[in-house]
Amino acid sequence: MSDVLAMSARTQETVVMTAPAGQHTIREHNLALVMRSIADGPRRSRAQLAEATGLTRATISGLVDELITSDLLIELEPDRSSRGRPGSPITLNPNGPAGLGVEVNVDYISACVVDLTGVVRAQRTELLDNRTVSPEQGIRQAVTLASAVRDEVGKLPIAGAALALPGLVDSDGVLRRAPNLPRWQDLDVAAEFSQMLGLDLQVDNEANLAALAELWYGEPRDDFVLVSAEIGIGAGIVLNRRLYRGVRGRAGELGHVVVDPTGPPCGCGSNGCLEQLAGQEAILRAAGVIVGDIGTSVADPHGAAEELNKRARSGDGRTLQALTEAGVALGVALAGMVNLLDIPAIVLGGIYADLGDWLLPTIDAELRRRVLASNTNVELSLATLGSSAAVRGSAGSVVAELIAKPH
Amino acid sequence: MSDVLAMSARTQETVVMTAPAGQHTIREHNLALVMRSIADGPRRSRAQLAEATGLTRATISGLVDELITSDLLIELEPDRSSRGRPGSPITLNPNGPAGLGVEVNVDYISACVVDLTGVVRAQRTELLDNRTVSPEQGIRQAVTLASAVRDEVGKLPIAGAALALPGLVDSDGVLRRAPNLPRWQDLDVAAEFSQMLGLDLQVDNEANLAALAELWYGEPRDDFVLVSAEIGIGAGIVLNRRLYRGVRGRAGELGHVVVDPTGPPCGCGSNGCLEQLAGQEAILRAAGVIVGDIGTSVADPHGAAEELNKRARSGDGRTLQALTEAGVALGVALAGMVNLLDIPAIVLGGIYADLGDWLLPTIDAELRRRVLASNTNVELSLATLGSSAAVRGSAGSVVAELIAKPH
Repeated sequence: MSDVLAMSARTQETVVMTAPAGQHTIREHNLALVMRSIADGPRRSRAQLAEATGLTRATISGLVDELITSDLLIELEPDRSSRGRPGSPITLNPNGPAGLGVEVNVDYISACVVDLTGVVRAQRTELLDNRTVSPEQGIRQAVTLASAVRDEVGKLPIAGAALALPGLVDSDGVLRRAPNLPRWQDLDVAAEFSQMLGLDLQVDNEANLAALAELWYGEPRDDFVLVSAEIGIGAGIVLNRRLYRGVRGRAGELGHVVVDPTGPPCGCGSNGCLEQLAGQEAILRAAGVIVGDIGTSVADPHGAAEELNKRARSGDGRTLQALTEAGVALGVALAGMVNLLDIPAIVLGGIYADLGDWLLPTIDAELRRRVLASNTNVELSLATLGSSAAVRGSAGSVVAELIAKPH
Repeated sequence: MSDVLAMSARTQETVVMTAPAGQHTIREHNLALVMRSIADGPRRSRAQLAEATGLTRATISGLVDELITSDLLIELEPDRSSRGRPGSPITLNPNGPAGLGVEVNVDYISACVVDLTGVVRAQRTELLDNRTVSPEQGIRQAVTLASAVRDEVGKLPIAGAALALPGLVDSDGVLRRAPNLPRWQDLDVAAEFSQMLGLDLQVDNEANLAALAELWYGEPRDDFVLVSAEIGIGAGIVLNRRLYRGVRGRAGELGHVVVDPTGPPCGCGSNGCLEQLAGQEAILRAAGVIVGDIGTSVADPHGAAEELNKRARSGDGRTLQALTEAGVALGVALAGMVNLLDIPAIVLGGIYADLGDWLLPTIDAELRRRVLASNTNVELSLATLGSSAAVRGSAGSVVAELIAKPH
C-alpha cells in the first residue's frame, strides 16, 4: 500500500508525505467521477458507466442511486432499438437543482437561470446606469430582477447564485475596485447579495465569467482569450480549459494595457489605456454619436452597436474612422498579449460581437504585422453569446460546481 | 483496488479510465521521490528518508543503493554529534553526472558546467557578433568553447547539454526564428550541436532558461517574470514555480510588445516594439555612444552597461535621458503585462541588471501609475546572475532532469 500512496504524491508535485485517502474522500471522488462522465460523455447505462470508469457495477449502481435521490440524475426509458439487453440511459436531470446568474454592469443589470443540462430557463436584462445610482440601489434592483427571473422558473430548485461584476473581485467576494463605477469600492457585495437573495453566492469578474460561458457553451476550444467589451474592456484567459486568474485573482485587465503612452487620461489613473481608445464610449465619442440625440437605448451595448452599424453601413466617414481606430488599438493590445502568452485564439465578445464587420479586418491586419511568428495563425472570431455571456457564465458556474462536487 | 485507481483519475483531470500502475512505474516514481527529497530538503539518513517519504526502510535502502551505484548520491560519514544511534546523511554527489550549458546570443557565446549540487565548475564567455558570421561558424565556435569548458572539469562526467538561443525554439529543437539573427531561421540547431558535441542536447529560448536559473539559484520566489535584455528583450514567465511556455512554446516575447504604435520599425516586421525603445542598442544609440569610438567591448553587455554607467555617473544629459526613456518604455510594457497576468514580482536581468540605479526609479513610477490596482505592490528587483543567467539555466536544466528522472 505504501507504494500506491507514494504514487499519489507524484501527482501532488510538492507533497512528499501523503495521508491515506479515507472512504469518505473516495466516495466523494467517485460521485464526481460519475457526474462528470455523464455530463461530458455520451448517454450511458449503468453497465456502460462501470466500463468507462473502471468501477464495479455494484459501486456504480450505489453511486447512481444516490445521485438520483439528490435529483441530480434521472434514468430514462431503456433504448429498445439497441441490440442485446437494453440498458436505461442515465442523464442529468433538467428539473434538478439549477443555477441563478446575476450581472451588474456599468449601464445594465441582468439575471438568468440555467438548469443542470446547460439550458437557459429564464433571462432578463434591464438598462440601469450604475454610475448615476448608489451601489445600494444597484444591488436592490439587481436582486429584484433576479427574484423575477426566479419566479419565472416556478418550482425549479435554485442551488446557488453567482454574480458578475465589472471590476477586481477578491477571493472573499469583496469588490475591490471597478474603474468605471468609482463608488463601488471595497464593497462586500457577496455578503449583501447573498443575504437579500437567501442563497449562497459567488462573485467574480464579468470577463472571467464570460470566458467560462464561451468555454462551456461556445465553440470547442482549449486555449483562448475572450475579450469582453462594454464601457470597460476585460479579458478572460482560458489555458488548457481552465480560467487563468493570476496570482491574486486580478489577471485579464486588458482594458488597462497602455496602447498610446501619450493618449487620453483613464479613470484608473494611467493614460492611453485600451479602454480609452476602443471602449464603447470611446467609439461612440469618436464617431460623433451624442447619447442624448438618439435616446437612452444607446447606453445599452445593443443600442450602441446598432447605432454604430447603421451609421457605418450608410458610409458615415467619421464612424468608419472611429471603428478603424478602435480596431487598430485593439490589434496593438492583442498582438502584445499574443506575443507574451502565445494564445492561439481570440474571441471578441460584448459590444465587439456586434461590430465584427468593421473591426475584424483591422484587428487581423495588426495581428499579422505585429505577432512575432507571423506565420503563426491566431484564430480571431466573434463570441456567439455577445453581451449575455457573463450572466450565462455566472449561472453556468453554479451548475459546474454541482457537477464537480455533487456530494 | 478499483477505488484507488479511480482516485488517481481525479488528479489526471481529463482521464476517466485509468490503466493500472505497474511495478516499473512505481520504482521510477520512488527513485525520483528520493532524489527530490534529498535535493529539496535537509540532509537526511536512510531512516529519516523513510519517515519523510512514507516508504519502508527496506524500500528506501534499495532505492538509495541504486542511486549511489548510479553516482547520483553519496553517503557521508555518520554525524556523531547527534543523539542516539547516528545515521549517515545521504547527499547529492558533487562528482556525479553534471550538466553542460551553452548559450549562443546575438553578440556573444558562453558555456558552463554545473554539477548535481548546483555548483558552477567551469564557465567561459567569448564575444562573437553572430550577426556578421554564418550560423555554421557560430555553432562551430560555440562547440569549441563548450569543449574547452568540458576539458576544464576533467573527469567530471557530463550527462547532457542544453543550449540557450535568442529566438523562438520549437519543441523538436528547431530554431524557428531569431529576430536579431535573421540568418538563423528554421535551423535544426539541436541535431547539429548534439552531433558535434556527442551529447544529448535540449534547446530552449534564452529568456526561459534565464528565468529557470533565477528560480533555482536566485531569491526564493514562486511567481515572477524574468526580463532578459541584451540586444533583444525576452521574458521568462514563472507561475507557481513552473515556466509558462504558452500553447506552442512561444510565450514571453516581451521585446515585441508594442509600446509606441508610431515608433521606429523593428526587425520583426512590426514597429514601436519595446526592443526598439529599450534594447541595448536602442539605449546606446539614444545615448550617442558610437560603438567604434570605444572599441568592441561595448558590443558585449558588460561593456555596454559599463560605458552607460560611466557616462550617467558623470552627469551626461543625453545618457541620462536615454536611460529614462528606456525606463518609461519598459514601465509601460511591464505595467501592461502585470495588468494582464497579475504577476507579483519582476526581476530585471541581462544588461538591465547592471543599470538598476538609472532604470528602477523610472520603471517603478510607471508601474505605480499604470498597474490597475495601484495599491497592489509589484516587487521590482535586479537579477543576481546578470548576463550569465541563461547559460547557468541551460546547465541547470540538465541537472534538474537528472533529479526529476534518475532512472
